[in-house]
Amino acid sequence: MEGPVCPLPLKHDDQIILGHGSGGRLTHDLIKNIFLPYLSSPPLLSGDDFARLTRPNGEVVVSTDCHIVSPLFFPGGDIGRLAVCGTVNDIAVSGAQPLYLTAGFILEEGLPVQTLVRILESMRIAAQEASIQIVAGDTKVVEKGKADGLFITTTGFGFLPEGRTINGSQAQPGDVILVSGSMGDHGIAVLAERGELGFSAEIQSDVAPLNGLIQDLLAAAPHTHVLRDPTRGGLATTLNEIAAQSQVGMLLYENTIPINPAVQAACEMLGFDPLYIANEGKIIAIVPPDEAEAALEAMHRHPYGKSAARIGEVTRNDAGRVLLKTRIGATRILDMLAGEILPRIC
Amino acid sequence: MEGPVCPLPLKHDDQIILGHGSGGRLTHDLIKNIFLPYLSSPPLLSGDDFARLTRPNGEVVVSTDCHIVSPLFFPGGDIGRLAVCGTVNDIAVSGAQPLYLTAGFILEEGLPVQTLVRILESMRIAAQEASIQIVAGDTKVVEKGKADGLFITTTGFGFLPEGRTINGSQAQPGDVILVSGSMGDHGIAVLAERGELGFSAEIQSDVAPLNGLIQDLLAAAPHTHVLRDPTRGGLATTLNEIAAQSQVGMLLYENTIPINPAVQAACEMLGFDPLYIANEGKIIAIVPPDEAEAALEAMHRHPYGKSAARIGEVTRNDAGRVLLKTRIGATRILDMLAGEILPRIC
Repeated sequence: MEGPVCPLPLKHDDQIILGHGSGGRLTHDLIKNIFLPYLSSPPLLSGDDFARLTRPNGEVVVSTDCHIVSPLFFPGGDIGRLAVCGTVNDIAVSGAQPLYLTAGFILEEGLPVQTLVRILESMRIAAQEASIQIVAGDTKVVEKGKADGLFITTTGFGFLPEGRTINGSQAQPGDVILVSGSMGDHGIAVLAERGELGFSAEIQSDVAPLNGLIQDLLAAAPHTHVLRDPTRGGLATTLNEIAAQSQVGMLLYENTIPINPAVQAACEMLGFDPLYIANEGKIIAIVPPDEAEAALEAMHRHPYGKSAARIGEVTRNDAGRVLLKTRIGATRILDMLAGEILPRIC
Repeated sequence: MEGPVCPLPLKHDDQIILGHGSGGRLTHDLIKNIFLPYLSSPPLLSGDDFARLTRPNGEVVVSTDCHIVSPLFFPGGDIGRLAVCGTVNDIAVSGAQPLYLTAGFILEEGLPVQTLVRILESMRIAAQEASIQIVAGDTKVVEKGKADGLFITTTGFGFLPEGRTINGSQAQPGDVILVSGSMGDHGIAVLAERGELGFSAEIQSDVAPLNGLIQDLLAAAPHTHVLRDPTRGGLATTLNEIAAQSQVGMLLYENTIPINPAVQAACEMLGFDPLYIANEGKIIAIVPPDEAEAALEAMHRHPYGKSAARIGEVTRNDAGRVLLKTRIGATRILDMLAGEILPRIC
């Protein structure tokens, strides 16, 4: 489970290790102790994956994401689809409608144009599906061996309907925790494509633009408190972030969390916990109890929410902690991911 | 002058070469023939470095830029200052006031935190100078040897005062062409720092946020037609882009173009033309003749415009071409940069 150890907090004479890109505790430490002292603003300090920008007539929502997945192509997607969907989803979980995307490409000398074209075509399709325009771009090339194929950084923005406040600090005791489908598919699909499973598995990444699903969900459950996509660090890390932001506890029921049997099997063989594995086409929704059933039904009607499930509730006790009631009836603390388990998965 | 040859147009079974990142003809070919068929929208098709986004109450301007400069530190700046200023300037040349920036970091495993901190501090100072907020970010880490220290992709946006239309297609015959200072400083400073000059030169990069200078310029010359920062590909390539967008000719007077003696000497030794070398703290302004003097005076009063000069005029003849009247009185065509001469300078 745990990656290489680096004593916290990170100090100026330490070195960056892979775990600093994990989305887990080391990433939080890097951001809190290294980035925020230098690059700080109210939106960055809020701890959400998006920035709400005040302007006279409404608010613009913006988010940025670097994509470095290896390999570039994997079952169910590729770096291009990932680059579009990752940022679309970060905007959509604010409750805003994503409208525009920028894309910056860092290409390695020697990259076959054919490869680039496959990726661009994939971006085009994903952008079309998400109904967004790619409005600005940049391309740089570095010498062979100075990058790994290509990296894509996307920045998205959208506009927020007035009066909508959905973010990680809105969870309230009594709220119901929903997920839109099975956990861990993306991370394990990428791992399988690298040949690191030691056996072949028919696991597809779930990478998808979720703004349509979220729109349907919000129509059914307009008082939704929190939406977030459990990417790096998985469900467990994402819920820990929200529990800390909202200063609430959470109680999950292990037997209700949807996990594909092939993902479960792969995780058991490798000693991974699927609750820490990245997803790229799933959302967590935290909704008031009286809207939970409507939210669940709305997700079930959408192609990307067929396996949506109610997995737990927000509690007053244990503020900042996520507890898991296991299949055998025990209760254990589900902590934030500590190090890195699967580098280069997004 | 010319980099490695790659037959145009780029085809699907070709490979990416360094010249595709040059900002010159090969980059244009890559964008036109490979990117635009897949990722296209009116703002991307306009050929400007920024996207104007229509919304009910005014327009948002956005631009994105990947930064891969090597080495990370050079006289006068570093990748952090470059990453802030490059994008601030791309927004400012639209006539918009840059307000917000996002930053995506791709870090190489093993990067000393000290190095990162120096760069972040430099970003902070540049952001403060430019009066912008960094509002969203992302960090990924790749294995040692899979990137070169770090890469930074920034996306900026600002808001455009109503009724302002400044872009590459607005140049008109009779307009005066101004530059805000000496050409080629940035590219040669980076080259010198790499030890590629073969001698030591006291050349500082000009990297700077130009929104303040542009604000002063526009107050003095409110009918300015075109503003652009001559980065990759230098003055010659940038003016060729504008000449093509506006379908006008241009005539430059070589003896009026400001060039630092040390840059001139370095270029002569290496066989470079300073008009093709990147700048990171200079603008080209194309203004109606009756506002040219006021524009020039406004630049002279600003710290970043002390060496501003009138270097030529827009002509009706030779549409799409830039001509240079040389010191000895001959006239030659100043073409767009063909290949790559200085990779990794921004």
